[in-house]
Amino acid sequence: MIDKLIKKIKEKDAPIVVGLDPMLDYIPEFILEDAFASCGKNLQGVSEAIWQYNKGIIDAVCDLVPAVKPQIAMYEQFGIEGLQAFRRTCNYASAKGLVVIGDIKRGDIGSTSEAYATGHLGKVVIGKHSFSPFAEDFVTVNPYLGSDGIKPFIKVCKEEKKGIFILVKTSNPSSGELQDQLVDGKPLYEILARKVAEWGQDHMGEDYSYIGAVVGATYPEMGAVLRRIMPRNYILVPGYGAQGGKGKDLAPFFNEDGLGAIVNSSRGIICAYKKAPYSDRFAPENYADASRQAVLDMKEDLKNAFVR
Amino acid sequence: MIDKLIKKIKEKDAPIVVGLDPMLDYIPEFILEDAFASCGKNLQGVSEAIWQYNKGIIDAVCDLVPAVKPQIAMYEQFGIEGLQAFRRTCNYASAKGLVVIGDIKRGDIGSTSEAYATGHLGKVVIGKHSFSPFAEDFVTVNPYLGSDGIKPFIKVCKEEKKGIFILVKTSNPSSGELQDQLVDGKPLYEILARKVAEWGQDHMGEDYSYIGAVVGATYPEMGAVLRRIMPRNYILVPGYGAQGGKGKDLAPFFNEDGLGAIVNSSRGIICAYKKAPYSDRFAPENYADASRQAVLDMKEDLKNAFVR
Repeated sequence: MIDKLIKKIKEKDAPIVVGLDPMLDYIPEFILEDAFASCGKNLQGVSEAIWQYNKGIIDAVCDLVPAVKPQIAMYEQFGIEGLQAFRRTCNYASAKGLVVIGDIKRGDIGSTSEAYATGHLGKVVIGKHSFSPFAEDFVTVNPYLGSDGIKPFIKVCKEEKKGIFILVKTSNPSSGELQDQLVDGKPLYEILARKVAEWGQDHMGEDYSYIGAVVGATYPEMGAVLRRIMPRNYILVPGYGAQGGKGKDLAPFFNEDGLGAIVNSSRGIICAYKKAPYSDRFAPENYADASRQAVLDMKEDLKNAFVR
Repeated sequence: MIDKLIKKIKEKDAPIVVGLDPMLDYIPEFILEDAFASCGKNLQGVSEAIWQYNKGIIDAVCDLVPAVKPQIAMYEQFGIEGLQAFRRTCNYASAKGLVVIGDIKRGDIGSTSEAYATGHLGKVVIGKHSFSPFAEDFVTVNPYLGSDGIKPFIKVCKEEKKGIFILVKTSNPSSGELQDQLVDGKPLYEILARKVAEWGQDHMGEDYSYIGAVVGATYPEMGAVLRRIMPRNYILVPGYGAQGGKGKDLAPFFNEDGLGAIVNSSRGIICAYKKAPYSDRFAPENYADASRQAVLDMKEDLKNAFVR
C-alpha cells in the first residue's frame, strides 16, 4: 500500500491528503435541508448530510490528490449513524481510486489492538466467509502503551499489504507536555522515532516502509531532526493551514528525492467556501468547487517546500 | 457520577467492574447458532450473539457489582454491526442500574477530543432535539497528546456529571517503553499522575474527583507510589486475573477508607465457564452462572487486599 500511495503522489504531483473532518456547521444549508427532509431531523439525517457533503468534495478533488484522511471522531460523535457515514465515505473514496487513511489514533494492550487492527485494516472470518468491517488502507496509531500495542497492527499490515502512521510528535499546542520530556537529554519523541525507524527497516515496501510516523507541520525544527532519524519512514504531516503550518515550513519533512512526506489539510480545503479568499467567489452551492480551488492553491504553496 | 459509583461500590460491598470484552470464541455455541439462524452467518449474526451473551452475563451479575466496562475494540472489530451490540450493551447495563465505563482510550487534538467527548459522554443538539449517541457514564482517555486532548473531556464531564479515567500506567508488559522513561530521575507516569491530581482537585465530587486514573494491577509497587500522588483520584485497575494480578497485589491501590480503587476483571469472569475450576461445574448453557460464581470468588479474593 505504501508503494501505491507513493505512485499516486508522483502521478498527481501532489503530496497532499485531504482531511475529511466534517463539522455540522461546515455543511452548506441546502445539503442539511435535503438530508433532514429525506431522513428526519435526527442522527440519521446528519449522517446523510455528512455523506452527501463528503461525496461532493471527493468528486471535486479525486483527480488532484492521492489520498483522503477521514477523522473518525467527527463521525463517531454522531454515534452508529455517524459511523455509517464514515464507512460510506471510506468505501466511496476507495472506489474513486483514492488511498484512505483512517485517522483513528487507536492503541491498546496486545489483544485489544489486534481487534482494532482487524476491524479497520483486516478481515473477520465467520464460517466460510470473510468480512472487512471498515476497509481503510492506512490508520494512525497511538503509541502510549508501547510495542505490545503496535505489533498487532504491523502484523495485519504485513498480511493485508496495508500501513500505519504512528503518532510521534503531534501538531497541537500541548503535544510537548509528554512528547518533549527529556530522557537522558533527548526528547521522548526522538526515542519513539528511533523505534519507528527500527520497525520500518523490517517492514519495507520498495523504497519506503509501510510503517510511517505522524509529525505536526507546526514543529518544523523537530521535523528536520525526525526526518534524519527516520529516513525511510513516510511522514504524515497534519497542522498545515488552519492550525498554522505554511508551505515553506514543510521543506524539512521531505527527503532529497522529493518524497517521504504527505501533508494533510482539513478545514482549509473542505470548508474553503466559508473563508477568504474563496468566500467571495464561491456560493455555498459551489462549496466543492471552492475545495478544488483550495487544493490547487495548496499544491502551488507546497512548491515552496521544494525551493531550497 | 463518581458519587453514584462510590455509593454503588459501598452498597454492593464490591470494588469490582466486570469487563465486557467478548471474543467470538468465548461465546457458547448455542448462542452463536441461535444468532446465526435468526440474523445470518455474518456481522449482523455476530452482533446479535455478542448482545445475547452480554445480556446473560449482565442479568447474572447486576445485583453483585456496581459497574461494567465494555472494551469498545471488541465491538468495533465487527464494524457498525459490532458497535450496535456495544450500544445495546451500554443501554441495557444502564437500565439494570449499573454504572457504564466505556473503555475507549480515545484522545486527540482539542477539537477532535471534543467530538469524542460529545459522542460518548455528551449530547448532540439537532434542531430542537438532543441525542446521546453513545451513553456511557465514564470513559478511559489516552493522554499522549497532552492537556489539549484531556480538557474537552473534562468540560463535558462537568456539564453532564460524568467522569473519565486517564491512562497513567497501563497493565501490559511493554507499558514501560514510554511510560517508565525517566525525566529528571522521575518516571513519566509520575509526571502525568501529578497532572491528574491537579486536574482532580479542581473537579471534585463529594470525597473523590470525577477525573480518575488507570493503573495496572500488574505493577503494585508503582500503584503504591501513584496512590500517594493522587489521593483523591479514583483508580481503575485492569490486569487482575487473566493478566496476572491477584487480590493481595491490590492493597496498595486502595486508601485507608477502603475506597479509591475499582478492579476490573474481564476474561476471568465472562469466560469463567471455559476454565478451571468452573469448567467442571458449569456447562456452556450455564455460562452466566459460572460468571456469577467467578464474581463471588473475586469478591472473596479481594478481601485479601484489605488485610493489612
